[in-house]
Amino acid sequence: MSNEISIKIGSLLNEVRNKKPLVHNITNYVTVNDCANILLAIGASPIMADDIKEAADITKISSALVINIGTLNERTIESMIASGKKANELNIPVVFDPVGAGASEFRNSTTKRLLEEVKISVLRGNMSEIKFISGLGSTTKGVDASENDARTGNDEGIDVAKNLAKKLQCTVAITGATDIISDGERVVILENGTKMLSNVTGTGCMTTALIGAFCGAGSDYFIGAVSGIISMGISGEIALDKAGKIGTGSFHIAIIDAISNLTSNIIEKMNKIKEI
Amino acid sequence: MSNEISIKIGSLLNEVRNKKPLVHNITNYVTVNDCANILLAIGASPIMADDIKEAADITKISSALVINIGTLNERTIESMIASGKKANELNIPVVFDPVGAGASEFRNSTTKRLLEEVKISVLRGNMSEIKFISGLGSTTKGVDASENDARTGNDEGIDVAKNLAKKLQCTVAITGATDIISDGERVVILENGTKMLSNVTGTGCMTTALIGAFCGAGSDYFIGAVSGIISMGISGEIALDKAGKIGTGSFHIAIIDAISNLTSNIIEKMNKIKEI
Amino acid sequence: MSNEISIKIGSLLNEVRNKKPLVHNITNYVTVNDCANILLAIGASPIMADDIKEAADITKISSALVINIGTLNERTIESMIASGKKANELNIPVVFDPVGAGASEFRNSTTKRLLEEVKISVLRGNMSEIKFISGLGSTTKGVDASENDARTGNDEGIDVAKNLAKKLQCTVAITGATDIISDGERVVILENGTKMLSNVTGTGCMTTALIGAFCGAGSDYFIGAVSGIISMGISGEIALDKAGKIGTGSFHIAIIDAISNLTSNIIEKMNKIKEI
Repeated sequence: MSNEISIKIGSLLNEVRNKKPLVHNITNYVTVNDCANILLAIGASPIMADDIKEAADITKISSALVINIGTLNERTIESMIASGKKANELNIPVVFDPVGAGASEFRNSTTKRLLEEVKISVLRGNMSEIKFISGLGSTTKGVDASENDARTGNDEGIDVAKNLAKKLQCTVAITGATDIISDGERVVILENGTKMLSNVTGTGCMTTALIGAFCGAGSDYFIGAVSGIISMGISGEIALDKAGKIGTGSFHIAIIDAISNLTSNIIEKMNKIKEI
Repeated sequence: MSNEISIKIGSLLNEVRNKKPLVHNITNYVTVNDCANILLAIGASPIMADDIKEAADITKISSALVINIGTLNERTIESMIASGKKANELNIPVVFDPVGAGASEFRNSTTKRLLEEVKISVLRGNMSEIKFISGLGSTTKGVDASENDARTGNDEGIDVAKNLAKKLQCTVAITGATDIISDGERVVILENGTKMLSNVTGTGCMTTALIGAFCGAGSDYFIGAVSGIISMGISGEIALDKAGKIGTGSFHIAIIDAISNLTSNIIEKMNKIKEI
Repeated sequence: MSNEISIKIGSLLNEVRNKKPLVHNITNYVTVNDCANILLAIGASPIMADDIKEAADITKISSALVINIGTLNERTIESMIASGKKANELNIPVVFDPVGAGASEFRNSTTKRLLEEVKISVLRGNMSEIKFISGLGSTTKGVDASENDARTGNDEGIDVAKNLAKKLQCTVAITGATDIISDGERVVILENGTKMLSNVTGTGCMTTALIGAFCGAGSDYFIGAVSGIISMGISGEIALDKAGKIGTGSFHIAIIDAISNLTSNIIEKMNKIKEI
């Protein structure tokens, strides 16, 4: 447990609840309803808009932009770029979830282009995706981390996150059994969460959306990333306790319940944060 | 409590259950699953089809058309127009939900075009959206009503609804803490519902879909609008009672449960209808 | 109860859990979240990708391809064809759900084209859709089976399934109150399930996705089809018992719970399989 940082997270959660930041999501159609509901549950306000004719206009009135390539298609790539550039222009944080990077040339080239043309504030992915982006050669199998990559040691993971964060000048978050977050200088490891989170689709996407909410309410995006990830981890533990034995459908609903009931007290008590 | 109108609503609910009207939805990808499930829960049959190559064909076999611009894109605008015109031609009711009207030029111009080219039967929106359409100058922030607009007094709201209903020759419904419905002559105010409904995405979209179901089963679209809105309001109260303390995920599910168990008796007992 | 076949199904379920087959879905945006979650619940790994620039690449790394035309649009038809051809080339099973075939010329011609250009392994639909494909002239009303078709006798249904299976050289599954599955030689009738399954959107789509999971883990696609359908039927019965009285929202969640808890023992005990 790390007191100073958990107090910062709790205080940022209160900011989210007070400010109700509007979070613009250009995301996939598989998990979009959960992303909207998790944003409402944490206290933010979601808006989804992906047509090139309005994407940048919507970004302009938002407090954060979340880009997710889970069901990438040609129509929305230009919207992602236009919104990303508008966000950069207005100093609105951009959170990027490179779902399935490494799984197809289309996702790879789009990821590359996004990273070249848009300044990202927080990059969140699983080990396979982040390794792919780091150019370390990964073995992405679909949209879930490959087993080899999931077994990457923490020390190696910290190096990957830290180096990529320095290179991209942003916060990099690798989520998995252990979560590793670095902005190139600071490094935090989180041990919250449960394996059952991987039995519900979109817990990664929802985590990215939550990061958007926190970054939209504060100016330290590293803390924003840690806040979003720990909110999901702790809520996963609470949901496991409440509904884990019932099945994955009830567990799914219990995650959203837990996020809607999350408080700074719960974060202070349950966090398993380790600053490196 | 207004007995005569609540009896009409209960009787229309029974019609929905008997006729199982097919409701064609051209809608957004955020809340579409909930819209389909709420339609099944009330007793209707949903169909979603938005490609220009089939939109009008699907409208042709439907009892109502619901148009929702929540995640508007260029591909489906022409489908909305084509389906709307086909519905007008065949006297099929058209329910329109101008999600986020006022938030971007793209939504504004599309809303304008839809209202010009398609005769709408029921227009349902929050105060910001309806004010924008009325040309009163609003302050739409995203897809939720702005705080200023949400505080609009009932008397002003009634004027807005009534005047717009006259102008568009349709039923206009403004939903919020208090719901105001007018067809230009008749005016009804509903006090059912709970603030928690705004913590679940798509309760507005679902309400619009429900209006589609009721309009598909009867010929008085004003009563259809009142029926859809009060069904959601009452179900929100029941869901709050059953699951409000558990969290927003469980509350979401409890709304659909309540709609599936709704009866004319419940409506007669719980309605807070005021005819003006 | 048929022991030999239920043992095969139980053993295939264990294979799904061990192999975690990656199932590529080109599907509709109404039920896609449930399809992903049901695939995770049964033990498979879902991936949704529908852009022509990556569809075949994603199929290449998958164990099964599921094509569903529930919200068909011009953009994804070419992706369905390209992925289907790639699957054929690599002997990856293709499961096809012709949602709403018969309801519009667009769905009809696309269904025809898919059947001509792609070798299907399993075709699953309701009686209206399968009759339409058989050229028997049906009365498709939307995406649910028409009442007339739903009353088709088992003997006639068996003929329809068997003949179409022979013609298309694949397994044909007609789901409804009674499910009929045939590969042209073998015929199985399933009496599991509950009427309440038709009150939740996407139970058909989810069944098709489950067939994809089972076909991705074994080589007998007839058994794969029976396994997917019986998994949904039995889970529907369990969900009815647990949540049927609460409402359709809770019943929906309970279906996914039941799939996540399904075991070969449950299948052996609860199956109502009849080999013809």
